[in-house]
Amino acid sequence: MGNYYRDNEDLRFYVERGIDWAPLVEATEYGWKAPDGFKNAEEAVAFYKDILELVGGFVADEIAPHAAKIDEQGVKLVDGEGVFPPEMQAIFDKLKELELHGMCVPRELGGQNTPAMIYFLNAEMMARADVSVMAHHSFHGGIALAMLVFSATEGTTTFDLAAGKIASTRWQKEMGEIIRGEAWGAMDITEPDAGSDMAALRAVGEQDEHGNWFVTGQKIFITSGHGKYHFVIARTEKPKAGDDPFAGLGGLSMFLVPAYEDMPDGTRKRIVKLGRIEEKLGHHGSATASLDYERAPAQLVGRRGEGFKYMLTLMNNARVGVGFESLGLSEAAYRAAKHYAAERGSMGKTIDRHEMIADYLDEMRTDVQGIRALAMASAYHEELATKLNLFADYLAGPNGLSKEELARTARRHKKISRRLTPLLKYLASEKAVEHARRALQIHGGNGYIKEYPAEKLLRDALVMPIYEGTSQIQSLMAMKDTLGVILKNPQGFVRRLAQARWRSLSASDPLQKRLARIQTLSLSAQQHLVVKTAGAKFRQVQDKSLKDWPRLLTKDWNPKKDFALAMLHAERLTKILADEAVGELLYDQAMKFPERRDVAERYLERAEVRCRALHDEITTTGERLLAQLHGTEVAAEEQAAS
Amino acid sequence: MGNYYRDNEDLRFYVERGIDWAPLVEATEYGWKAPDGFKNAEEAVAFYKDILELVGGFVADEIAPHAAKIDEQGVKLVDGEGVFPPEMQAIFDKLKELELHGMCVPRELGGQNTPAMIYFLNAEMMARADVSVMAHHSFHGGIALAMLVFSATEGTTTFDLAAGKIASTRWQKEMGEIIRGEAWGAMDITEPDAGSDMAALRAVGEQDEHGNWFVTGQKIFITSGHGKYHFVIARTEKPKAGDDPFAGLGGLSMFLVPAYEDMPDGTRKRIVKLGRIEEKLGHHGSATASLDYERAPAQLVGRRGEGFKYMLTLMNNARVGVGFESLGLSEAAYRAAKHYAAERGSMGKTIDRHEMIADYLDEMRTDVQGIRALAMASAYHEELATKLNLFADYLAGPNGLSKEELARTARRHKKISRRLTPLLKYLASEKAVEHARRALQIHGGNGYIKEYPAEKLLRDALVMPIYEGTSQIQSLMAMKDTLGVILKNPQGFVRRLAQARWRSLSASDPLQKRLARIQTLSLSAQQHLVVKTAGAKFRQVQDKSLKDWPRLLTKDWNPKKDFALAMLHAERLTKILADEAVGELLYDQAMKFPERRDVAERYLERAEVRCRALHDEITTTGERLLAQLHGTEVAAEEQAAS
Repeated sequence: MGNYYRDNEDLRFYVERGIDWAPLVEATEYGWKAPDGFKNAEEAVAFYKDILELVGGFVADEIAPHAAKIDEQGVKLVDGEGVFPPEMQAIFDKLKELELHGMCVPRELGGQNTPAMIYFLNAEMMARADVSVMAHHSFHGGIALAMLVFSATEGTTTFDLAAGKIASTRWQKEMGEIIRGEAWGAMDITEPDAGSDMAALRAVGEQDEHGNWFVTGQKIFITSGHGKYHFVIARTEKPKAGDDPFAGLGGLSMFLVPAYEDMPDGTRKRIVKLGRIEEKLGHHGSATASLDYERAPAQLVGRRGEGFKYMLTLMNNARVGVGFESLGLSEAAYRAAKHYAAERGSMGKTIDRHEMIADYLDEMRTDVQGIRALAMASAYHEELATKLNLFADYLAGPNGLSKEELARTARRHKKISRRLTPLLKYLASEKAVEHARRALQIHGGNGYIKEYPAEKLLRDALVMPIYEGTSQIQSLMAMKDTLGVILKNPQGFVRRLAQARWRSLSASDPLQKRLARIQTLSLSAQQHLVVKTAGAKFRQVQDKSLKDWPRLLTKDWNPKKDFALAMLHAERLTKILADEAVGELLYDQAMKFPERRDVAERYLERAEVRCRALHDEITTTGERLLAQLHGTEVAAEEQAAS
Repeated sequence: MGNYYRDNEDLRFYVERGIDWAPLVEATEYGWKAPDGFKNAEEAVAFYKDILELVGGFVADEIAPHAAKIDEQGVKLVDGEGVFPPEMQAIFDKLKELELHGMCVPRELGGQNTPAMIYFLNAEMMARADVSVMAHHSFHGGIALAMLVFSATEGTTTFDLAAGKIASTRWQKEMGEIIRGEAWGAMDITEPDAGSDMAALRAVGEQDEHGNWFVTGQKIFITSGHGKYHFVIARTEKPKAGDDPFAGLGGLSMFLVPAYEDMPDGTRKRIVKLGRIEEKLGHHGSATASLDYERAPAQLVGRRGEGFKYMLTLMNNARVGVGFESLGLSEAAYRAAKHYAAERGSMGKTIDRHEMIADYLDEMRTDVQGIRALAMASAYHEELATKLNLFADYLAGPNGLSKEELARTARRHKKISRRLTPLLKYLASEKAVEHARRALQIHGGNGYIKEYPAEKLLRDALVMPIYEGTSQIQSLMAMKDTLGVILKNPQGFVRRLAQARWRSLSASDPLQKRLARIQTLSLSAQQHLVVKTAGAKFRQVQDKSLKDWPRLLTKDWNPKKDFALAMLHAERLTKILADEAVGELLYDQAMKFPERRDVAERYLERAEVRCRALHDEITTTGERLLAQLHGTEVAAEEQAAS
């Protein structure tokens, strides 16, 4: 009888002490206005803990033991439908019984109204047992919630303020199906020639003379693509002229498309063809499908041209989800490695006593704890940002904040989650791969064979830095936002750098000193990139007339070329930013909870050396490659022109 | 019509200019004394080139196109024998026709008498096409050569000096079978509870009253274990008393055991049972078997108790082999990534024009070239060391070196190969994993599915840092040898450090300056580890009587505890040592061949930043973990004692 909640002290720390539950519960409980809701945070948290204990036991006993078998069999395409291994099916039947699919959905819509945070905590535990199960579970509740958020955003959800509940929402029937586990949902974005580059999407949404919408095109790599309800992004407007690669984003719209109809006799009438189920390296229990849309009847979400906006609404949440998924896998990898190393003897002692292996294990453990801190913070701020807006009508009031103040608070949370989320997605997914590989290596030859869990963990991990935005995309986003802040407020930046330098010299707490050194390295690396970037820009205009400068410096600003050095170093900068963010979170914890000082010390010790190395790399390399890259570009352009 | 030799400029550089062929050909051609041998290096090299061109075409056209199919089917255990996919069988039938199995075997024994270097160059190309094919090919010629080397070492090979040939050798019949491709060989070391720790081996060699030997025990993870001729290590002496974990190595002996007998009717009579064929993450075309020895008739090699010595004879060569195998896989990964990135468009250009991806590709290319330099040097010195000893009777003479001078030269080569080989095995195998992962990531979602080559490359790569001595074992060896040199000659070390520092400041060539900075970092990291190590030792004796110091410092020297910090940082030191070695090789090339300056510059630029980071990590971290590790050890000991 295992329990992935009880056996995980670091995870429990957040539930029991680390998370400031009150604001989250208040927002989730419509400011305590729901008649059948909890009336204070303590009551609610006690209920959440029950769920976590229940799920912790369930994943340990009912999912983990079947993971290898599910992996071995995989999902198959049979008669045009995705067919799961019986073990997977059995797990989902039980999840249905436990009513876990609608956990985060409001009570009045059939759910249990827990915060999304509880879903994420469950997700970590599920991913520790099996990422395929976790991924598929996430596409039940996740799509149901997306329906609610999309509907509220477009204004088709009505709130009954007096009764303290949602009165109606556009896709209430569909949400019910999903919550009851009768239908699965999916989010269809990727196409054969468009992954990260959404402007290149080619699927088309067309309207007939009666105003009905139809979607046509091919979507690939769709997780849970065998499911019924698909949010599909398709092009409804002609791409704008010009070579701006982002021009195309404004032409996208969001649709809800049922991929099949449930017939009264229990059979399915397929509307959208399931083209194939991919044969993947890992995630064998997960249906990754391609779908062929051929004038499939569709419901437009919001207005035409708002597709990208709607996608963005969910993007952060999806990325936080991958963060927790990666974290769960890292936890599994760390535990597998630790367990094996404590049993395997070599040269007269178990290998966990060998210095190098002990160092690996210590690093993995520290990483996992750091990533968990980042994951919790990202999830927390993202959820508050969303809920303070969504339920502002309930939350605002004479005894609390005004709607304006709520909106301001929401924006503050959103700013934090926007900063943290790409760092989490980047760090957690890259580390999941690294940890799984470490676990494999620690297993020696046994790591390479199917009998042991390590190789599956690595196969499963390898998609995490790819889906929901590659590590490279996360890096570019983090870099862009970070340097954008400097460009907007250079004085503020200089002040922050000076303050960090001062703290790094004068702080009395060595831990704060170390954190300040990391912050200084981060800011100094940013400064280098901005100065070099601006420097290149200024060099370009040097021989131009002074009166042309303003125009040249601003109007001809080409982010792709002018930011070349920053683009080159974006991943390195992101690694520093992630270590800095984790360091800050762990330092704050150590200040509040003395027992957390050990984690903070371990993390900051390793982080400082890493950041020094990355700072060094950012400030001393890259010019050679850029000269070469742009040299050949100029040559190519010249050749094309001649 | 591809050709993996012709399309690889960097590889051709070594054949055409980089390798100093004359000494190698002379040693291979018995000092030009073989009547039917080549009479000068030019003739020989022209012949080698023909082989390389032939193999280059063969691997590109006849192996690479079948790699995916072989991977998909894998090796199966059918009626107690290993059964290969038909595509694999067809390849080996062709290798047999081409007479490649005995390529490096002396002419008079049925081979083509090429240097082992040619085998390694072929191995790289084969591994680029498919590592399973490469691995199995290596166990033909490799075991045949092992038979010759073992026989010569134990004194059962006779040389006909006048005729310039080997007159007879103990396993001539067996070698013939292998060379003709009728039998495969294997080397059986690993057991369920003994991998790196050979002292823990438990298989037993016993002698009956007639002096016949029999081997009993289980061997696992045996590559090519389905084959006929097995060199098996087994215990013939009772473990010595005492807790020295190496005591057990002296009790091991080497045996040759035929696993089956070929019957006149074409069937096989199994002597050793093939227990299972492992289901592995990759290398699916490779038979990784477990074997159950039950009083299997065996031939003792050399004398009893010399098993470890015989294993060591081949170990370096086997590790160099993995170096080339890893290199071939890295080359494949780099090319797959480059090809994909040049085709895949995103944001208005192909992704190889995006700075981050361009940086990855540049680093991969540079790494591959660096590893190739290291592989060539390791192979070259290893082969000369072996052949100058083996064929000393031919090579010594009035017009050349004396036997003593030859032995001295051989020792010089051995010293270099001993230094370079663990660095090669470490660097090449770790980089193969890194490059394959990079290739997968560059492929995005396509990297994760079976349709593209990236995921197979990564699966295949992951065993390389494990077999033939894990990365951790290579690191310990490299660290031990490096620090051993300092302890033997501290004055020489101080001089080397001073010289490197001086060059890093005064050299006029910036490339030499950069190399000197890397050498300085390497020596400074070594110095730190030695001083800290010795420091800990001295602290231990501080409160003891002075007259006890010599005894305490020397007799109670416990390499495991006293070297704890060096053990902890062994892998980091090894990374520096590898970069330093590659840097030196590429710098020497740049001096001799101006067109190689570009490679050297690229490598040294990246290496310097890496080495600075590693030096920083070695000199500023580790104490916390050691205190904790040894704290708990002391606590455990105290608890055990109480």
